[in-house]
Amino acid sequence: MIMLDFTTKMPTYKLCYFNSRGLAEMIRLIFAEANVEYEDHRLSDWVELKPKMPFNTVPVLYVDGLALGNSRAIMRYLSKEFGINKGTPFELAKIDSWFEYIMETVTKLHPLYSEPDKEYKASVVAKVEKEFQGKLQKLEELVNTNGGPYVFGKNVTSLDFALYNSIEVMEKIYGIKFDMKTYSAVNTVLTSVASRPNIAKWLQNRPQTLH
Amino acid sequence: MIMLDFTTKMPTYKLCYFNSRGLAEMIRLIFAEANVEYEDHRLSDWVELKPKMPFNTVPVLYVDGLALGNSRAIMRYLSKEFGINKGTPFELAKIDSWFEYIMETVTKLHPLYSEPDKEYKASVVAKVEKEFQGKLQKLEELVNTNGGPYVFGKNVTSLDFALYNSIEVMEKIYGIKFDMKTYSAVNTVLTSVASRPNIAKWLQNRPQTLH
Repeated sequence: MIMLDFTTKMPTYKLCYFNSRGLAEMIRLIFAEANVEYEDHRLSDWVELKPKMPFNTVPVLYVDGLALGNSRAIMRYLSKEFGINKGTPFELAKIDSWFEYIMETVTKLHPLYSEPDKEYKASVVAKVEKEFQGKLQKLEELVNTNGGPYVFGKNVTSLDFALYNSIEVMEKIYGIKFDMKTYSAVNTVLTSVASRPNIAKWLQNRPQTLH
Repeated sequence: MIMLDFTTKMPTYKLCYFNSRGLAEMIRLIFAEANVEYEDHRLSDWVELKPKMPFNTVPVLYVDGLALGNSRAIMRYLSKEFGINKGTPFELAKIDSWFEYIMETVTKLHPLYSEPDKEYKASVVAKVEKEFQGKLQKLEELVNTNGGPYVFGKNVTSLDFALYNSIEVMEKIYGIKFDMKTYSAVNTVLTSVASRPNIAKWLQNRPQTLH
């Protein structure tokens, strides 16, 4: 007799990143929102680990021991696994397109982490600030069209977490200050994300880091 | 009596881009592979159209008249709609991660299209060439591990089309020459893509453009 086990077993998750927020924090927000257990591994041996990472970069997510690289691919994978985004395939694709729209500006900052040339660093930060101001205007229109309190209306999506983290990275790490009074609808998105029970708990208890 | 119509109607697709390959050609390859009809709109009125595009950029895909921006989001959407990639959610995420890995280098070239500073342009092209050499080495290992003839083994994926187009863009538009004898497994991927019947037909009949 063959016995079939239909118990759904939750895989084990391990997220590898530096002891900082950077590109991993939006993924941690997804874990927090879904209230799913994972090992939040903060590495201290980067030189040794780097050649073993799929793309020689972090974050890397291990799912039952198998490695998945690239922060945006990890974000999409977990959002789908945890059922964060709801909608038709076309609606999900629109969320994805706005996610890329935000990320392609913010990811310009991450290589600056170890940039020694201060003048070059300042020029990239200034460029990112200007570029993102334009994107905030577009987001403001979108939130207003969709009626808030989240970017795509009444349901939170992975984009909201990415947006929350992106603005935090730009402001706290790179000293960019956005006048959020000008973007009051986007500001409502940020406060709505921060006050979701699981997120509020994470924000209060997460490790305090320099970056 | 309520009459329900369960006929699956194929949506109408319209792809907007310049009269060039650039960021749209990988999407055209997906349409060709799936043998799905679409309007391959090559625009001539960019100044007028730009403010109307979701992100003020192209490509834009219209699905039954609704706009979807961002080349990578379009690529993922159509690959899914047409069932191009097969596998578990984790396997699909791995394909996505390698797709991003390639695209994040290649997309550095596209802003150069209208760059007047020749010296700056040359420096970016050189940087991209060096960066992509490293990625070709990683791809070579991956193809060998998976056994070919495609990057993920015997089934073609959206990544193969993106790779084909990326190398074409780098070589034909930006004059980068890769020694494909060094990357013989990757070269097999390229020739395997080009010889798929629907792709071969498209490559033979597609518009000849400068870029």
